[in-house]
Amino acid sequence: MTKIQDVASRAGVSASTVSNVLNGRGNRMAKETLARVEAAIEALKYRPNTSARQLKTGHTPMLGLLVPSLANPMYGSIAREIETLAQERHGFRIMIGNTYRDKAKEARFFEDLVAYGVRGVIIISSLVDEQHFESASERGMVVVSYDRRLTPGATSRIDHVSVDNFEAARIATAHLIEQGHTQLAFVTAAGMTMSRREKISGFKAAAAKAGLAENAQVVEGTPLSEYGDSVMSEVGRIEAAALAARKGPRRPTGIVAVNDMMALGLMAGFREAGLHVPADVSVVGMDDVFLSALMNPPLTTVHLPVAEMANTIVERVMSRLSDPHIATSEFMFQPRLVTRGSVAPAARRKKVQ
Amino acid sequence: MTKIQDVASRAGVSASTVSNVLNGRGNRMAKETLARVEAAIEALKYRPNTSARQLKTGHTPMLGLLVPSLANPMYGSIAREIETLAQERHGFRIMIGNTYRDKAKEARFFEDLVAYGVRGVIIISSLVDEQHFESASERGMVVVSYDRRLTPGATSRIDHVSVDNFEAARIATAHLIEQGHTQLAFVTAAGMTMSRREKISGFKAAAAKAGLAENAQVVEGTPLSEYGDSVMSEVGRIEAAALAARKGPRRPTGIVAVNDMMALGLMAGFREAGLHVPADVSVVGMDDVFLSALMNPPLTTVHLPVAEMANTIVERVMSRLSDPHIATSEFMFQPRLVTRGSVAPAARRKKVQ
Repeated sequence: MTKIQDVASRAGVSASTVSNVLNGRGNRMAKETLARVEAAIEALKYRPNTSARQLKTGHTPMLGLLVPSLANPMYGSIAREIETLAQERHGFRIMIGNTYRDKAKEARFFEDLVAYGVRGVIIISSLVDEQHFESASERGMVVVSYDRRLTPGATSRIDHVSVDNFEAARIATAHLIEQGHTQLAFVTAAGMTMSRREKISGFKAAAAKAGLAENAQVVEGTPLSEYGDSVMSEVGRIEAAALAARKGPRRPTGIVAVNDMMALGLMAGFREAGLHVPADVSVVGMDDVFLSALMNPPLTTVHLPVAEMANTIVERVMSRLSDPHIATSEFMFQPRLVTRGSVAPAARRKKVQ
Repeated sequence: MTKIQDVASRAGVSASTVSNVLNGRGNRMAKETLARVEAAIEALKYRPNTSARQLKTGHTPMLGLLVPSLANPMYGSIAREIETLAQERHGFRIMIGNTYRDKAKEARFFEDLVAYGVRGVIIISSLVDEQHFESASERGMVVVSYDRRLTPGATSRIDHVSVDNFEAARIATAHLIEQGHTQLAFVTAAGMTMSRREKISGFKAAAAKAGLAENAQVVEGTPLSEYGDSVMSEVGRIEAAALAARKGPRRPTGIVAVNDMMALGLMAGFREAGLHVPADVSVVGMDDVFLSALMNPPLTTVHLPVAEMANTIVERVMSRLSDPHIATSEFMFQPRLVTRGSVAPAARRKKVQ
């Protein structure tokens, strides 16, 4: 890699003369010197080093982006939006990390961001405890968190961008109830994020409103040892097998999945157990990843406005980076139900005496 | 953000004294001075700046990673593997970029890598022309390319890691022929990457060997204006509608899709057109993304050893970064067929007189 010293040697000038040329102060020197430096830069294909520039300006045009796993299409999709906006609109690059929802990995990523002079970071779908992000903010980081809400009553140095997860689960559940389902289940994975808690509240609220509180169960999937690409759908498959094995009214007919990947796993698991979706069991997802429309049956799900949320996330980081006095805030987006083919009216059941 | 000067002021020493402490040379100074510096570092939560260190060592512990789009689950999956290996095994971070297969975006990413002092870069599935990567190598970059082969007879400054794409398409096609299919189609998207060319050759070779060269057609999908998350599956859906509209033996019964996303789109499109997969038309994918096993019917596809390939990619970059004299090479992995439910024996057809 060519260094500024190499350019200086070739041009027969000092490194600070080369630096003056690079920083637009070439007009202060003899024309002949300027031409020599420019020729040396060209001949050696020298590119100024951002790190060197950064030592002067004190920041790097880079953002950190933490996701649980890029292999989950929902996170891949939002990561693509964020990277494209940051790059095309602001010229910022993205340093990315998979956290596997591991707090130690998240903390190490923050240490590295600081070491690189990166001052803006976006956290997708972290665990409940936000303390280490607050500490990072105290040390001067601009942090935007996606998929979780501000703890009620708390103040925070962090921006929170999320969808209304309570509402998302509420409308999914209400849709099943409208279709006549009275035995309901909400299926989620082990490990409680704030967004999962809110979804469970929305599920229970919809059931309670319809007088079905006692028929609405929350199923928390068995933890899998490895956080692979397919962990969420695998949990769905396993839980579907367990639900299908239940007899009579203990088997729910209307299922709300914590997200689309879980819903796809549930549909596959029910099929493997000989149940038909939606004739025997109806399934509603959450996220509306593009794949959901391609399923057989196409998945009824709750759509999140990913592009709009990514836009807010990127604009918040950028504006707070340029003005540290902007107050943090909470941004909540509204979900909407997308009805496709995975929900059918509930079949009448014989009453158990 | 705390600067080294802030630490120096608080401890009442020079910045170079703080630097000595940070670089393990604290034993050369008075114990009392060392203690004062350490207390100031702690109090101000100061973290040494990687950029400053980099100016001395001349490299950044970061790799560039270029993918066409993180929203494609295949790229999300390999990006996850690469990031995890680079971080956990080597302590390197990843700067990521979506290229949308746009050469100008690729070139700009390279400029930025150089500016950041990043010397290792991994390119996933680029277009045919590799000249700008070769130029980057001339300027001292270590480049590893995934999903394309070395141009036959050429020498290169780049490592090439790929699956045997010819073989992948050949075994997919041979499987359809074994099941009695005689009207074959290979469906791909517009825009010719080297891997697509090889797949087409493998498809044609298998058909020719069975005496079916004239019944084996290549369908290149209409280009879509926007490179969104779902571009590949959308092309599949559109092409399935067009294929389903053909009458008699002009309609192929055995389809090889350029990748799994295309295959999922084809299956959805055939379904929408009233055809059953696999009773009316058989479909084979390529990639074996984890979602393929969840489809209805589960997708028969060609498995790529993603974890092994990611391992080779990361180890090649790292070893060539530490020893620039290591010669570049080509690494080719073997695919294998995974039979699931999307292929059935061909129905007998009435001969057209």
